Amino acid sequence: MQKYAKILESVRTTSPLVHQITNYVTVNDCANITLCIGASPVMSHAPEDVIDMTRIASALVLNIGTLDPKQIEGMLVAGRVAADRNIPIILDPVGAGATPYRTKTAEMLIDELPITVIKGNAGEIGTLAGTAATVRGVDSGSVSGDKKMITQELAKQLGCIVVMSGAEDIICSGNRTLGVANGVPLMGRLSGTGCMAAAVTGAFAAAASDTLHGCAAAMAALGIAGEKAAKIARGPGSFKPAFLDAVASLTPEDLEASAKIIEY
Amino acid sequence: MQKYAKILESVRTTSPLVHQITNYVTVNDCANITLCIGASPVMSHAPEDVIDMTRIASALVLNIGTLDPKQIEGMLVAGRVAADRNIPIILDPVGAGATPYRTKTAEMLIDELPITVIKGNAGEIGTLAGTAATVRGVDSGSVSGDKKMITQELAKQLGCIVVMSGAEDIICSGNRTLGVANGVPLMGRLSGTGCMAAAVTGAFAAAASDTLHGCAAAMAALGIAGEKAAKIARGPGSFKPAFLDAVASLTPEDLEASAKIIEY
Amino acid sequence: MQKYAKILESVRTTSPLVHQITNYVTVNDCANITLCIGASPVMSHAPEDVIDMTRIASALVLNIGTLDPKQIEGMLVAGRVAADRNIPIILDPVGAGATPYRTKTAEMLIDELPITVIKGNAGEIGTLAGTAATVRGVDSGSVSGDKKMITQELAKQLGCIVVMSGAEDIICSGNRTLGVANGVPLMGRLSGTGCMAAAVTGAFAAAASDTLHGCAAAMAALGIAGEKAAKIARGPGSFKPAFLDAVASLTPEDLEASAKIIEY
Repeated sequence: MQKYAKILESVRTTSPLVHQITNYVTVNDCANITLCIGASPVMSHAPEDVIDMTRIASALVLNIGTLDPKQIEGMLVAGRVAADRNIPIILDPVGAGATPYRTKTAEMLIDELPITVIKGNAGEIGTLAGTAATVRGVDSGSVSGDKKMITQELAKQLGCIVVMSGAEDIICSGNRTLGVANGVPLMGRLSGTGCMAAAVTGAFAAAASDTLHGCAAAMAALGIAGEKAAKIARGPGSFKPAFLDAVASLTPEDLEASAKIIEY
Repeated sequence: MQKYAKILESVRTTSPLVHQITNYVTVNDCANITLCIGASPVMSHAPEDVIDMTRIASALVLNIGTLDPKQIEGMLVAGRVAADRNIPIILDPVGAGATPYRTKTAEMLIDELPITVIKGNAGEIGTLAGTAATVRGVDSGSVSGDKKMITQELAKQLGCIVVMSGAEDIICSGNRTLGVANGVPLMGRLSGTGCMAAAVTGAFAAAASDTLHGCAAAMAALGIAGEKAAKIARGPGSFKPAFLDAVASLTPEDLEASAKIIEY
Repeated sequence: MQKYAKILESVRTTSPLVHQITNYVTVNDCANITLCIGASPVMSHAPEDVIDMTRIASALVLNIGTLDPKQIEGMLVAGRVAADRNIPIILDPVGAGATPYRTKTAEMLIDELPITVIKGNAGEIGTLAGTAATVRGVDSGSVSGDKKMITQELAKQLGCIVVMSGAEDIICSGNRTLGVANGVPLMGRLSGTGCMAAAVTGAFAAAASDTLHGCAAAMAALGIAGEKAAKIARGPGSFKPAFLDAVASLTPEDLEASAKIIEY
């Protein structure tokens, strides 16, 4: 697990600037968790601003949780700068499968931009993979069929890394597959843990030499922090500050000792 | 109080999807409280997305806390789908009476859509009822005259349920009136408790066979949770996580034991 | 320190309405801290709404953290009403220096409106002063040269009060300079403490007869609250509720006893 621990160390040392174009529901949590993990968040969505912001960023996170046409324009403009600069682009296709607008926008972003990592729940990843998936609102949804196979197939088809979050997170780059078994059910009862995972994945993708390992380290880091926080939380409300505290105090040694990363 | 307790049970069992078009100030709290009460939140405002989102929702909540023309368009489009599908529409007329734009938008939404429940503070409900009301910003405001009569008259005039929040919440459907005496003053010192009440009312209206009872159960549930949270909070900051925890752990038995609902 | 304590007393007595056109990242924290300090927040950005809202406000806060053209239009419209009514206008130039759009917008607002107070970090203030400054995203940035001189020069040049936040906050009105040495490093690890400082400065500027003293009292009040909160916080996550609690329970006596305000 030492290689994963080193990526956290690198996040802390380099403090990558993570430019996030994201939804207005969980944006504060995304900013705070980015700071807590040791990176630097910046939120900016207007086409007038995003070109220059992406120029100084080390990763770009696109989250379609509360889409509108202006924001999509900002995502495309920022994404092209990120592509030119060869910095990782993380896509969180929130609600893909719930409405055609969300599904089509996710697909359009995948077509237009060289997405580095797609991170979604089972329903969202299943939808993008063309599998029979159930997505209700932005809930975790479900998918029929083998999760590992669906994730692998989508990764191969798109030539990017796909992260399907769940009790065990599945992380595939086409020919390589990792599983991360950290985390607690309480994380699913707090709005925004998925969005926060995408933000932190941006930081780790910026800091890691191997992006697949970066994605696994990010999911393990959050899962371990969640496990710690669940021990002192009295419910979803007190879980949030405890989770942020746990992320802020997480050390590379903690990650090395507690990460449950399976290399398939 | 058993019939009210059964509605909470039904919220938990059916987990209704509550589509919320709301302000960007308290939207995270609305998402989290919807999850904590046992329902499922989804936020979406763009006209391009809301038709399909309202099609899968069990209730629609319209909150005018940070209005702009695009959002109003989204509210109208979503409201028409909700009307067609006969799902409850909750209107929170935040700041009606503070500015003409807010007052007129609330009135326009009432004219154009078959609103099921209007939930506001004394100043907002007084403004919509045409009574002499004082509204300063989005504060609780005040109204001159008998609160019960004003609420009853507005309910009769509009043919919908009106909830006037306050130390005692007044809930009228024209010919029936309920009062809810749960709650603590600390709830007024935290931004967003009113917005959260509208979100939770959406969940209860979706789950209840009798919407008036659903509204009372929603206000009682939050009031009881507030009472519990106030016992451990050190101020408005620590009240928020404690309040969310209390909502998440609230049982139908708690509601049955502690609800102070008066049937006038 | 008694004169500073009296301004807090006056905020609590008069509860000024602080109209805030601000970013969607930290807007909830700004609303809650405004309530906690004893003032009344209202957020509204649409040109259709801001004229009437600023008409009833006691201060206007403009924060460019997540700009777009519509919001800038709202800022200008609101700013002109504030100018006509002679209420204080606080500008928080978030990210000036990070992108040309932010720098130009801050400069344009300064040109078009009679800004009362500009509050920014070292990098932002340095950028506006034309000094060699480093701004990365919305981080604290840095500036080369003497912070006091840079702040004084910008204040003289613009004829307004300039607050440069930092370990010691520097507050200048051209011929007068104050320093505030309250605060803790943990405040820099939570997203939004700078935005919250601008919100609270709006409340104090509305309540103070001497705006320079008002700015110092605002920064000292938050710094003292931060010191208290840091004693019980386990990290940035639990610091937020503790900080809000400490602001809500801060008394004029606390401010008088603990303020570290240097009159240069």
